[in-house]
Amino acid sequence: MLENDQLAQWDRENFFHPSTPLGQFARGELNNRIVTGGKGVYIEDREGNKLLDAFAGLYCVNIGYGRQEIAEAIAAQAKELAYYHSYVGHGTEANITLAKMILDRAPDHMSKVYFGQSGSDANETNIKLVWYYNNVLGRPEKKKIISRWRGYHGSGLMTGSLTGLETFHNQFDLPLPYVVHTDAPYYFRRDNLGQSEAEFVKQCADNLDALIQKEGPDTIAAFIGEPVLGTGGIVPPPAGYWEAIQAVLNKYDILLIVDEVITGFGRLGSMFGSDHYGLKPDIMTIAKGLTSAYAPLSGSIVADRVWKVLEDGTDKYGAIGHGWTYSAHPIGAAAGVANLKLIDELKLVDNAKDTGAYFVQGLKDAVGDLPIVGDVRGEGIMAAVEFVKDKDSRTFFDPTDKIGYAVVGALLERHKVIGRAMPQGDILGFAPPLCMTKEEADTVIAATKDAIETVIAKL
Amino acid sequence: MLENDQLAQWDRENFFHPSTPLGQFARGELNNRIVTGGKGVYIEDREGNKLLDAFAGLYCVNIGYGRQEIAEAIAAQAKELAYYHSYVGHGTEANITLAKMILDRAPDHMSKVYFGQSGSDANETNIKLVWYYNNVLGRPEKKKIISRWRGYHGSGLMTGSLTGLETFHNQFDLPLPYVVHTDAPYYFRRDNLGQSEAEFVKQCADNLDALIQKEGPDTIAAFIGEPVLGTGGIVPPPAGYWEAIQAVLNKYDILLIVDEVITGFGRLGSMFGSDHYGLKPDIMTIAKGLTSAYAPLSGSIVADRVWKVLEDGTDKYGAIGHGWTYSAHPIGAAAGVANLKLIDELKLVDNAKDTGAYFVQGLKDAVGDLPIVGDVRGEGIMAAVEFVKDKDSRTFFDPTDKIGYAVVGALLERHKVIGRAMPQGDILGFAPPLCMTKEEADTVIAATKDAIETVIAKL
Ligand SMILES: Cc1ncc(COP(=O)(O)O)c(C=O)c1O
Ligand SMILES: Cc1ncc(COP(=O)(O)O)c(C=O)c1O
Repeated sequence: MLENDQLAQWDRENFFHPSTPLGQFARGELNNRIVTGGKGVYIEDREGNKLLDAFAGLYCVNIGYGRQEIAEAIAAQAKELAYYHSYVGHGTEANITLAKMILDRAPDHMSKVYFGQSGSDANETNIKLVWYYNNVLGRPEKKKIISRWRGYHGSGLMTGSLTGLETFHNQFDLPLPYVVHTDAPYYFRRDNLGQSEAEFVKQCADNLDALIQKEGPDTIAAFIGEPVLGTGGIVPPPAGYWEAIQAVLNKYDILLIVDEVITGFGRLGSMFGSDHYGLKPDIMTIAKGLTSAYAPLSGSIVADRVWKVLEDGTDKYGAIGHGWTYSAHPIGAAAGVANLKLIDELKLVDNAKDTGAYFVQGLKDAVGDLPIVGDVRGEGIMAAVEFVKDKDSRTFFDPTDKIGYAVVGALLERHKVIGRAMPQGDILGFAPPLCMTKEEADTVIAATKDAIETVIAKL
Repeated sequence: MLENDQLAQWDRENFFHPSTPLGQFARGELNNRIVTGGKGVYIEDREGNKLLDAFAGLYCVNIGYGRQEIAEAIAAQAKELAYYHSYVGHGTEANITLAKMILDRAPDHMSKVYFGQSGSDANETNIKLVWYYNNVLGRPEKKKIISRWRGYHGSGLMTGSLTGLETFHNQFDLPLPYVVHTDAPYYFRRDNLGQSEAEFVKQCADNLDALIQKEGPDTIAAFIGEPVLGTGGIVPPPAGYWEAIQAVLNKYDILLIVDEVITGFGRLGSMFGSDHYGLKPDIMTIAKGLTSAYAPLSGSIVADRVWKVLEDGTDKYGAIGHGWTYSAHPIGAAAGVANLKLIDELKLVDNAKDTGAYFVQGLKDAVGDLPIVGDVRGEGIMAAVEFVKDKDSRTFFDPTDKIGYAVVGALLERHKVIGRAMPQGDILGFAPPLCMTKEEADTVIAATKDAIETVIAKL
């Protein structure tokens, strides 16, 4: 075993961490935390801290930490065959089985799954497929993608463009011109406070229609959206939203890409967000919950009508010119098979629904009336508390007050509970492992109440 | 255990394979091969075939198949902690240690490593970093990337644009306008057969200079290249090429991204291609050999002068808005640590040099004089045989003759040896595991001779 000190120094000298203030970290002005283990909803670090991770890593360790069944499946695969590629019809028992298990769970009209490594690369694949699709159909102009402000779809140049959050665009020259953004379905942040939910939904659909008209329907290939906004603030859509949006897309023959990276495999208390909200995707993006992050794996599930066109395309032009070396990596596939089985065995989708409802209601009851709490919301086992300076007028804090970060800091320091300060706005987010118990939910709720009160006391 | 038949059917019904003719595969017109295990340079499939994989998967299983030391490192990590994220200064012993081991091996002026999952996403990161770098330096116009025809840098929208091969552009509307291509350093395919290597190199450098002048030096951010062209045909550069290219780049303050995805960690018989050719990279891309494909992991190694600017940027603008959920995944990191240790212990870099030289020379001796062999070339443990219709006039075959595929087919069917038909041209490629023995090399050489003669007999 290494000395902690040496490891911390190696870290600062060599490791370029994502989403980190690089100078501060290298100079030692920001703590490093070296994580060593975990079990259920808890992780442990080298200082001996045991922390309740109410964000499941980055909403991904859905099954919980330390599942030996998955570790063993990974170990067995590593011993037998860690890798062979999946190009030109090559496969392994694990990745073929997983493809079948995914399609068994996906909506009936879905046809095939392409495997990648990350949510970002799956969305990258999706855009490539959508472009290819329209080329095969002889519609070379139909290429632009509509995404929503506050959507999160990845961190690449194209996928970061789909992402509608400024921190991911800033200094990177994004969004690229292939992407146009439309309204976030964020009723709490509506411009006109007097507007009803129904009016707000109608406005979202009308604005989408107007945007399509303005750009030209023949230039718009696809619309991408998360069933519930994730990184944009953990925002379930208002009632009727998806029905209204889908009606507009159908009118103009625009493909629907449903990004289920967070919502796939149980987080909303249903297998997919598409089931939950009556969505009919042409392509679905999956990652995170597919393996519960035990190994990197993502997927693009394509619907029959898209697949047919892809077949026509490759019959005409030859093998599809798209592939990642690690597409359908056997280690990821073995983790995925074991994970999906365990989700069924442990009935975690049901638990996400039950404990999720209990958790969201508990949060509402505990903190809804606190003076700076403007909104408490959630769906399945995902929740958010949004802070405001003044409740009646819904006045937000100044971003430099960093109220969201202050609450998350108090939660961690006073209670060893990990929540997440969502990047745009003062929003405390939760997305715990699907196996969270009601007792653990109570712990998080009580800690949240105390953390918010602590921040209020200092205002 | 499943029945073979059922698995094959699940495969066709559910699995969207990369680089595959989709319709043919789904209809059963193309074989599927289900791989079950491997050891050293051999893989096995469910039909009981034992195949000598002289392409190491996709030039990635550098350490060879079935290494239990790596399997055990993966197993131990999976049991202890399969995942925690690396955002905002979080790490694990495995990923911090690996960062240190990489920097210990990289050229001295390299500073930090950012981890991704694939070679493609590492190059995507690189382009984002280059754009950010020039924004921080107040040069918002300096953004275009120069890549070479026949370079391969990935399969995303941007990385597929960097790739200079038509099969990866066709029907995908690539390349995107941010990328401009310059000459491939492919002396064998020079336009003017009378040209000397030195004249050809001068022409490459002059053309690059002219391209930069035409586009405007203030618009060109970076040049990306593989030390040895890989997927473009396995082509070592002519003598003096990199010196001449670097002189041009330095003249115009253009960053050099060296894509070491294939060449990193020993394939050329040196730790990096940069060492091998005296390159001074600003950013290096690593993947494949980093873990020998036992788990998905890639990296972007940034040089001091780039890192300094990134620090200034985040001091000014806050945490860098870039991250993949699976950045620095602990399973990949554990595989990487074990793999790099084993490469040292087994002295595989030396073996790549020795056995590689033996293999390339053996191929030259065995097939160099055959009537359709136009060129036999290689560097380290990578080699290619290029076919021509007429040797004296260097007349190529018609692509529809598919001579490269025919040779690869004969190699597989008659000798159970896996080579690769490189996608553009009639080129048989080899990039075996670095652990190949001289006896195994002899097997591949003899099989290659017979396969080529078999194809010649049918012409
Ligand atoms: C909805 C959604 N899509 C895509 C992604 C990108 O996934 P990754 O970070 O694996 O690239 C994320 C990551 O948080 C996500 O939440
Ligand atoms: C030189 C080079 N760069 C990048 C890549 C892309 O790597 P990946 O397939 O892991 O995305 C490859 C893959 O073959 C490569 O050879």
